[in-house]
Amino acid sequence: MEIAILIFRRLTALDAVGPYEVLSKLPEAKVRWVAVEPGPKRADAGLALVADHTLEQVAHPDVVVVPGGFGTRTVMRDPRVLDWVRSAHATSTWTTSVCTGSLVLAAAGVLRGLEATTHWNSLEMLGELGARPLSERIVRRGKVITAAGVSAGIDMGLHLAQQIAGDAMAQAIQLGIEYDPEPPFDAGSPGKAPKEIVELVRSAFAQREAEG
Amino acid sequence: MEIAILIFRRLTALDAVGPYEVLSKLPEAKVRWVAVEPGPKRADAGLALVADHTLEQVAHPDVVVVPGGFGTRTVMRDPRVLDWVRSAHATSTWTTSVCTGSLVLAAAGVLRGLEATTHWNSLEMLGELGARPLSERIVRRGKVITAAGVSAGIDMGLHLAQQIAGDAMAQAIQLGIEYDPEPPFDAGSPGKAPKEIVELVRSAFAQREAEG
Repeated sequence: MEIAILIFRRLTALDAVGPYEVLSKLPEAKVRWVAVEPGPKRADAGLALVADHTLEQVAHPDVVVVPGGFGTRTVMRDPRVLDWVRSAHATSTWTTSVCTGSLVLAAAGVLRGLEATTHWNSLEMLGELGARPLSERIVRRGKVITAAGVSAGIDMGLHLAQQIAGDAMAQAIQLGIEYDPEPPFDAGSPGKAPKEIVELVRSAFAQREAEG
Repeated sequence: MEIAILIFRRLTALDAVGPYEVLSKLPEAKVRWVAVEPGPKRADAGLALVADHTLEQVAHPDVVVVPGGFGTRTVMRDPRVLDWVRSAHATSTWTTSVCTGSLVLAAAGVLRGLEATTHWNSLEMLGELGARPLSERIVRRGKVITAAGVSAGIDMGLHLAQQIAGDAMAQAIQLGIEYDPEPPFDAGSPGKAPKEIVELVRSAFAQREAEG
């Protein structure tokens, strides 16, 4: 089972590493880190992750994973990426995204008219790209699974592991990565965080968006 | 504020990327990916992360983060790493680990007689190295914070962000990475997972340990 994770400059590393850490444990999983050009890709907070393969080398993966990050704004206008997404999706068993990775799926036409999710701050933009945005942690419609922001990729990975390999395997992976979350606050979504915190984060994102 | 994340061959990528994704958002944070030799380090499930700096180049970080993975078994016998951990710890504001990263801290003498945690499957080994193992998600004793397995690094990062920058900042970061966990099962720790799943994972780990 070939799992292609697309990476690019200014991705959010955890978007990609969350599902990778889960899905790589599936029996027969072969994770391929793919990019338009192989080599190190500098994530938005500085870490460089290495793409080992070109898009052409992994043209028909069983599972497609598209992470998010501000770098998606460039990637979603790159015809080489959009062609790859369309063509990989045509033959994939599962096509997935984390965070604003769904903007790339939408730009490629994969989410046209489909219910999907993204980072809470980008739901409107997802709608403008032709999807029907939902404020949910994971949205599965047919073979397309989209996840909410950043850390939601871990939940998405486990959900997908369950679909692919059953409950026991997904539970074993969850236990292996000791995913028994204990965040110090209950502030992980805009409906739960204090209003002023939501505004703070929203304006910080708007500034980064404006910086391009 | 300089944050050094130690990486090495066969680390578990999420151990490092969890705290990175949180701590890199702190004001004035400068994350440095350090290793004995700079360059790409292949994680235990195949992803290559790049170390930009040598240990010498980041000799006195404010925050030390040591991730885990089976690669710790080699690293904890490397005097260059142990010397660096000891010397960095002597001047750090915070010294932290995720998963079996605490075995490296213990091997360096940082945890002698101290309560600490690690991946649930390695608590005994942590005790043999002179620490007093606790089955908790995060253990803070003075300036030393150790976290449980893999995904616990996200919780540790948020806990540390709270210590460094206060509640509002930690909440903003949590919201930014949309950390509102919804695992499909409640199987993330050995006390919660079905017994047969615990045994399955324990024997899979024993096999990987034996493979070296």
